[in-house]
Amino acid sequence: MSSASPLRDLRVRGDRLCHSLLELAQIGATKKGGVCRLALTDLDQQGRLWVVDKALRLGLEITTDQIGNTFMRRPGKNTQLAPIMTGSHIDTQPTGGKYDGNYGVLAGLEVIETLNDHGIETEAPIEVVFWTNEEGSRFTPVMMGSGVFAGVVSLEHAYEASDIAGKKVKEELQRIGFLGEQVPGEHPCGAYFEAHIEQGPVLENKDKVIGVVPAVMGLRWFDCTVQGFEAHAGPTPMDIRIDALQHATSIMQRVVAIANEFKPHGRGTVGMVQVFPNSRNVIPGQVQFSIDIRHPDAATLEKMTSLLKEYIAQVSKEKSIAIDLKEVSYFPPCNFDANCVDTIRQAAIDLGYSQMDVVSGAGHDAIYMNRLAPTGMIFIPCKDGVSHNEIEDAKAEHLEAGANVLLHSMLAFAKPIHR
Amino acid sequence: MSSASPLRDLRVRGDRLCHSLLELAQIGATKKGGVCRLALTDLDQQGRLWVVDKALRLGLEITTDQIGNTFMRRPGKNTQLAPIMTGSHIDTQPTGGKYDGNYGVLAGLEVIETLNDHGIETEAPIEVVFWTNEEGSRFTPVMMGSGVFAGVVSLEHAYEASDIAGKKVKEELQRIGFLGEQVPGEHPCGAYFEAHIEQGPVLENKDKVIGVVPAVMGLRWFDCTVQGFEAHAGPTPMDIRIDALQHATSIMQRVVAIANEFKPHGRGTVGMVQVFPNSRNVIPGQVQFSIDIRHPDAATLEKMTSLLKEYIAQVSKEKSIAIDLKEVSYFPPCNFDANCVDTIRQAAIDLGYSQMDVVSGAGHDAIYMNRLAPTGMIFIPCKDGVSHNEIEDAKAEHLEAGANVLLHSMLAFAKPIHR
Repeated sequence: MSSASPLRDLRVRGDRLCHSLLELAQIGATKKGGVCRLALTDLDQQGRLWVVDKALRLGLEITTDQIGNTFMRRPGKNTQLAPIMTGSHIDTQPTGGKYDGNYGVLAGLEVIETLNDHGIETEAPIEVVFWTNEEGSRFTPVMMGSGVFAGVVSLEHAYEASDIAGKKVKEELQRIGFLGEQVPGEHPCGAYFEAHIEQGPVLENKDKVIGVVPAVMGLRWFDCTVQGFEAHAGPTPMDIRIDALQHATSIMQRVVAIANEFKPHGRGTVGMVQVFPNSRNVIPGQVQFSIDIRHPDAATLEKMTSLLKEYIAQVSKEKSIAIDLKEVSYFPPCNFDANCVDTIRQAAIDLGYSQMDVVSGAGHDAIYMNRLAPTGMIFIPCKDGVSHNEIEDAKAEHLEAGANVLLHSMLAFAKPIHR
Repeated sequence: MSSASPLRDLRVRGDRLCHSLLELAQIGATKKGGVCRLALTDLDQQGRLWVVDKALRLGLEITTDQIGNTFMRRPGKNTQLAPIMTGSHIDTQPTGGKYDGNYGVLAGLEVIETLNDHGIETEAPIEVVFWTNEEGSRFTPVMMGSGVFAGVVSLEHAYEASDIAGKKVKEELQRIGFLGEQVPGEHPCGAYFEAHIEQGPVLENKDKVIGVVPAVMGLRWFDCTVQGFEAHAGPTPMDIRIDALQHATSIMQRVVAIANEFKPHGRGTVGMVQVFPNSRNVIPGQVQFSIDIRHPDAATLEKMTSLLKEYIAQVSKEKSIAIDLKEVSYFPPCNFDANCVDTIRQAAIDLGYSQMDVVSGAGHDAIYMNRLAPTGMIFIPCKDGVSHNEIEDAKAEHLEAGANVLLHSMLAFAKPIHR
C-alpha cells in the first residue's frame, strides 16, 4: 500500500473478527476459558465445518488435500496467477487458548470479508488455508499438514502416525470427512502470509503493536542420559559416589550458560527431567533430560551445539561416566522472504502501528511454506507472553491491527484492481 | 572375651546360619533373587511364624508387645538381670534383599543355638527380638516398632498409620496374630547389639571383615520448591525468564558441595526431582526436589543446614524468586555406648578378623535402643555396597564372622557361667 493507494483507508472490522474468534472458541471450550480441540477429533471436525461453513457463506471455493489441509479460495481476475495465501491451524493443545492458530485462519477470512464488503477484486486469487495437526499434541510430528504439503514429511509417514489409543491419521481424516483427493503440494502458492500471536513477551514488554518477523529460529532438540551408580544416600561416602544428578545438573547449567553467551537470540532450555529411581534416600543412578537450543543463525546454532558437545565430552572424560546425547529433532533456521518482510513492515508503518522486528522462537506452518513461496509472518502481542495455555489472551485492538497489516500486505501481492 | 577365657574357641556355625538365611528368604522370594516381604502382610506373618517356630525349637520363650515386636528369650541364671538383647527386623523393601534385617535376627538365633550346642549358661538372659516395620515401605514412619518401644513414636500414632489400600497397622497386627498385650518399652534391656550388613561400600573397598560402628549419622530431610514462571522455550528471551530448574540445579549443586566441605562423614544427596510441567519446550514453572544431608556430629549437621539455608536465601534474594524449604524429617546423630563399641572391637581383634570403624549412614533399630540401653552395632561387608535391592549379597565367611563377633560381644555382657 503506497500512500497514493485509493485503498489506504481500507480496514477490517475488528469487532467481527473478535466475534468469530469467540464463536469458534466455543467448540471445545474449557472451563478455564481455553480450548481443547485436538487434531482430527470430533471437536476438530466441528471446528473445521464451522470454518468451512463461514467460508461458503463468503462465497469461497473449498478444496481439501490428502492430508486434510483445506483451502478456501476467493478467485482473482487473472486465472493464471497463483493465489496469495494466508492461514494457520485450528487444532489446539490439550489446554490451549483461543488465539494460537485460530487467529491466523479467522484473520484471513476477515480479510476476505472486508474485500467482499467493499467489492474489491484482485488480480491474483486470495486463499485462506487451515493446515492439519500443527500442534502435534495428538499425533507427531508437529506441523504435519504443512510439512506434508512442503514435501518434508511423507504422506505415508503422516498417515501411519497414531495417537495413544492407536488411532491413525488416515482413518481419522476419513472418519471426520477431511480426507481429500488433492495431492499435497500440487496446489500453487504465489506468496504466503501468516498472522499469529507472538507466544512470547517481547512486543508487550516493548509496548509495540506489530511484530515483523524476519526469521524463525533454528531448533535442535536432544535427549541426554547421564549414567551414575544407584546407591544408598547414607552409607555411601561422597568420594566414591557416581551421582548421575550432580553431573546432569552441571550440564543443565551449561545449556543455559551457552544460550546466555549468544544473546539476544540464543535460547537454551531444559524442560523435562526424569531421575531414576527418584527416591529420597537413593543417589540417582540415571538421569534423562531434554535439551532445547535455538538460534536464528545456522552457524551460531552449530557453534552452540559444538560448545554443548564439548562440555559433555569433558564431563564424561573427567568423571569417567557414560553420557549419551541423542538428537531427536532439528529445524534449521528460517529466513523469510525480504520482500514479504518489507511489505509487512511498510504496511504497519503506513497504518500507523508501532512495530518492531521479532525473531520467532517458536515453529509455525510458515516455516514449511517458506520453502515453497515467498513467505512472511505478522505477530501481535499476547498477554504476559503466555500461549499454549488456557489463559492465553490478546487485546481486541491488537487482533484488529494484525488483521489490517495482513489485509494490506496481501493486497500488495494480490494487486487490487482499481476501478 | 579375654585370651584367658575358656570360651575363646567358641564359634557359631556359619553353614547353619547361611542355611537359615536362605530358608527365610524363600518366604516372599522374588524372581531376581531378592525378597518382598512387606510389614504385616501375609508373607510377613509367614516369616514371623517361621522365626518363632525356630525359636521354640531352640527352647526360647516368646513374648509379643502391642506393636508386634517379638522377643525370644533364653533364660539366664540370674533372674534379676535384664536380658542382653540382639535383633533387627524381618520386613523388607518391595525389592529388598535376603540380608538386610534378616541377618541381625538369624545371627541372634545362631548365637543362641551355639550356646545351646555347648551347654553354655549365662548369668543374664539372652534375647533375640524382631522389630515391627523397620523399613517403612508399607507404613510410615520407618523403624516403627523400635520407635514405639523407645517411646519416640506413640502407639496411637503407629496404630493409625495406613497403607495405600487404607489398611491400618492395628488391624493388620490383629489379622496376622501379632497384636500382643505387653506394653511396648515395659520390657527391660541390659544391652542391645545389632549385626547388619553395611549397606555401603566402605568395608569392601578397604577389604575389612568387621565394621565397628561408633555412631550413626544424624539426618535431615527437606523438601525444596523453587517457583519460576512457565513459558515457551522458543519465544522467551533468556534475560526475562524465571527458569525454576536453573535455580533448582544451582541449589542441587550446592547440596553436594556442602557435603564435600565436611568429608569424610558429610553426606548430601538430592534423590527425587519433579519438574512442572515437564515438557520439552516449556521453561519449568516449578521444581520440587528432596534434600538429604547427614553427619554424625550434631553441630556439624547444624552447620551444614545453616550453609544450605544461607545459600537458598541468597538465591531467593538475588533472583527475586520464591523458594520454599520444608523440613520433613530429622534424626539426631547417635553415638553408641563406648563400652559396647569397645567390646565389639575387641571381640573382632580377638577373633582375628580385620576390622575398622564405620560410621553408619543409614538408620537402624539400634538408634532407638541406644536411648534405652547400652547399644552397639556390628557391620559386615555387602557386595558392591548394594542394599535395598534384590541383588543384595554378602559372603558366607562374612556372615559367619559377624555372628562370631556378636556371640562374643553378647557373652562379654551376659557373662557365661564357668563350670
